[in-house]
Amino acid sequence: MARAIRGSLFFFLDDPGADHNPVGSYQYFEDGILVLTDDGHIADIGSATNMQSRYGLANRDIIDHSGKLIVPGFIDTHTHYPQSEIIAAYGHQLIQWLDKYAFPAEAKFYDKHYARTISRFFLSELLRNGTTTALIFGSVHKVSAEALFEEAEKLNMRIIGGKIMMDRNAPQHLLDTPETAYSDSKALIETWHNKRGRISYAVTPRFAATSSSEQLQAAQRLYHAYDDMYLQTHVSENQHEIAWIKQLFPSSKSYLNVYNDFGLVGPRSIFAHGIHLTDDEFKLLADKNAAIAFCPTSNLFLGSGLFNFDQACLINVRLTLGTDIGAGTSFSLLKTMAEAYKVVQLQSNSASASKKKTPLTPFKTFYMATLGAARALYLEDKIGTLQPGKEGDFIVLNPDATPLLNFRMRKTLSLADRLFTLMMLADDRAIDAVYLMGKRWQNSEAYS
Amino acid sequence: MARAIRGSLFFFLDDPGADHNPVGSYQYFEDGILVLTDDGHIADIGSATNMQSRYGLANRDIIDHSGKLIVPGFIDTHTHYPQSEIIAAYGHQLIQWLDKYAFPAEAKFYDKHYARTISRFFLSELLRNGTTTALIFGSVHKVSAEALFEEAEKLNMRIIGGKIMMDRNAPQHLLDTPETAYSDSKALIETWHNKRGRISYAVTPRFAATSSSEQLQAAQRLYHAYDDMYLQTHVSENQHEIAWIKQLFPSSKSYLNVYNDFGLVGPRSIFAHGIHLTDDEFKLLADKNAAIAFCPTSNLFLGSGLFNFDQACLINVRLTLGTDIGAGTSFSLLKTMAEAYKVVQLQSNSASASKKKTPLTPFKTFYMATLGAARALYLEDKIGTLQPGKEGDFIVLNPDATPLLNFRMRKTLSLADRLFTLMMLADDRAIDAVYLMGKRWQNSEAYS
Repeated sequence: MARAIRGSLFFFLDDPGADHNPVGSYQYFEDGILVLTDDGHIADIGSATNMQSRYGLANRDIIDHSGKLIVPGFIDTHTHYPQSEIIAAYGHQLIQWLDKYAFPAEAKFYDKHYARTISRFFLSELLRNGTTTALIFGSVHKVSAEALFEEAEKLNMRIIGGKIMMDRNAPQHLLDTPETAYSDSKALIETWHNKRGRISYAVTPRFAATSSSEQLQAAQRLYHAYDDMYLQTHVSENQHEIAWIKQLFPSSKSYLNVYNDFGLVGPRSIFAHGIHLTDDEFKLLADKNAAIAFCPTSNLFLGSGLFNFDQACLINVRLTLGTDIGAGTSFSLLKTMAEAYKVVQLQSNSASASKKKTPLTPFKTFYMATLGAARALYLEDKIGTLQPGKEGDFIVLNPDATPLLNFRMRKTLSLADRLFTLMMLADDRAIDAVYLMGKRWQNSEAYS
Repeated sequence: MARAIRGSLFFFLDDPGADHNPVGSYQYFEDGILVLTDDGHIADIGSATNMQSRYGLANRDIIDHSGKLIVPGFIDTHTHYPQSEIIAAYGHQLIQWLDKYAFPAEAKFYDKHYARTISRFFLSELLRNGTTTALIFGSVHKVSAEALFEEAEKLNMRIIGGKIMMDRNAPQHLLDTPETAYSDSKALIETWHNKRGRISYAVTPRFAATSSSEQLQAAQRLYHAYDDMYLQTHVSENQHEIAWIKQLFPSSKSYLNVYNDFGLVGPRSIFAHGIHLTDDEFKLLADKNAAIAFCPTSNLFLGSGLFNFDQACLINVRLTLGTDIGAGTSFSLLKTMAEAYKVVQLQSNSASASKKKTPLTPFKTFYMATLGAARALYLEDKIGTLQPGKEGDFIVLNPDATPLLNFRMRKTLSLADRLFTLMMLADDRAIDAVYLMGKRWQNSEAYS
């Protein structure tokens, strides 16, 4: 007998755009059932009545989450697990923040035992917050990626990660070289990339300021040598950073063009932030099928600036959401959606707002955290929706998780309003259950 | 025997300014005891060792919150209880948001039974979030203030509130007149203001756009006729609002000057927002001992703009924090502090940042939410610190309330860092206990 899950089911079929009522872009079953295959894929989905009669389901076959909202597991496209310990570190903007907090924190990850401890905490926080897939930076140490991958494999979690490549402009003990960065990354790729568990590899130059041209060339070779290889890095987060990159790469046309000059802008390349990109840079990203990870909690916490969401949409850049732990202050993609809304609202009122801007819709934010991210990662055949054939990674949202949510939801009738209320008011308490490949995750982490 | 409370005790003696290590502005007892009088005032405070020997305290006399941080109850200086139901309402900025959400929500408060139900929910949310005193807008209906006051009196909670005065530019069924606004407010004042429970009254013209000159004159008479009278209203929240006020009061020098022209700027007058105030307006507020309620979650949610915190400090304006429910999205002053930090960070990086700005310190935000607010409200003889003689309104913060807090606090050693971690990462779960006049509050609200 197929295992079945009952609840309100919601997922996207396509990009809802800026439409306030994007009928056709999503499917919603108020009382639905999702049927799983024995190996944890989604076998079928539909209204409870239809599924019960089609599969002759008895109550004992059904795990009942009625009254709750079941959605695809969230996908976080930018985060640094070695920075878990410095979340909410006080008082600095990007460059000083790196020197004072991020580098010292990352220095501990030469120790695989330590890396394993933090990996376990980090992955359990992702899952407690409803995130079932993430694109993750390690530290410069090869063992940091190994520990992360081993722990994710135990959980059977679909993640993408990589060791940082960084051969200059950081403390000496945190530097690799073009050669070791290449060989360590290559070894990790050949062991892990689409080979073990549900792990994929991302070539991970930290950013152009901390990689020499030789190292960016090494990244280029790796990115192009393997099928379905990912690349993750940072771009245009902070004005001082941008000025620095200009000095370091005077012959490149723009910050993004530094990466492009090394062949690093393409499918499966994800650029974090992009706050200060020009239209030409947005166009380059769109043309090359690369993606931006918009990280609003981080951008506000570090005071980096307001991402120009409307413009990025207009130019059709692939957009996803990132928590950017540890400059971001929350593991929750719901809270990240809330902050994204605020960033867009703030720009609507700025002096430079020459035309009427569109408020960010809850459909768009939930899309970016699910199917939109899966598409940007070229994983829409596997995750991001609840369609038959996909991996059974989904979460159960409780709309009554706190007194305020419960109170607010009594008056909240439309699907759009319920989604918006969840993204503005819910937190980890609203994540009632998390399923990975059809199996319910149980938190066994000591810190939890 | 005196009742005694044990834990880490923290409170301010003076404004910490922008100082990162403002020794002398606060008191901190790592292991402290607070002794209460029989009527719930603070009798004495000091290190546990000292207090135990001075009062011969046995363990059975002590309520033990060891390992937790005890601080004065938070003070929220701007919030609208009739807007509880529209928290996180989608897609509009100030003026449209009022028309579409706020006015319809407030229209229900002609019904005292309904007003009582919402008052109970609202006050229990304040307390669940550690807020023991608030300055609260009712609706235009006299019964809305009565219901709120009666429920606060039952809880023995120190609140300040008032019925809105609004005689134009709102739906007909929500309008009063200069005369009824005056007589209803007067009746409320004479029954409640510093007479029953711990209730004070605030004369409450909504904002200059919804009160005629005649009504503002009525507000002026009320504000000046009674001892220790409060005045609460809104100023300079949104550019469209400011343009509208200019049209309505062409002879006033500025938005704030409209209020000043009617004698409404003075001690115990609290102006919400003030995002776009000029230096002259800041100076007027400072000269008149009036205060600003800075409401960052609301300002970000509505996209109203970034309050110029540094400039307001420079000009010595009395600054407090407000949640601004229902345009604000959280009842928590901890979350409000976090958003305040982000607003200040964002301005440090703006193109117009001509000089180096100072990041908002956790000392300053905790000060604004406690003693700073008490001073702005001229209540520093009663609340806002834990000094002997003050009312026993205090809260117990659990630094390990969530897995992330627990994890983060292990590495957080200085008091400044612990306060900052709490303000960035904690929520209502961190409010372990709330004491009102020395008595622990027990939540009996149906929604909770």
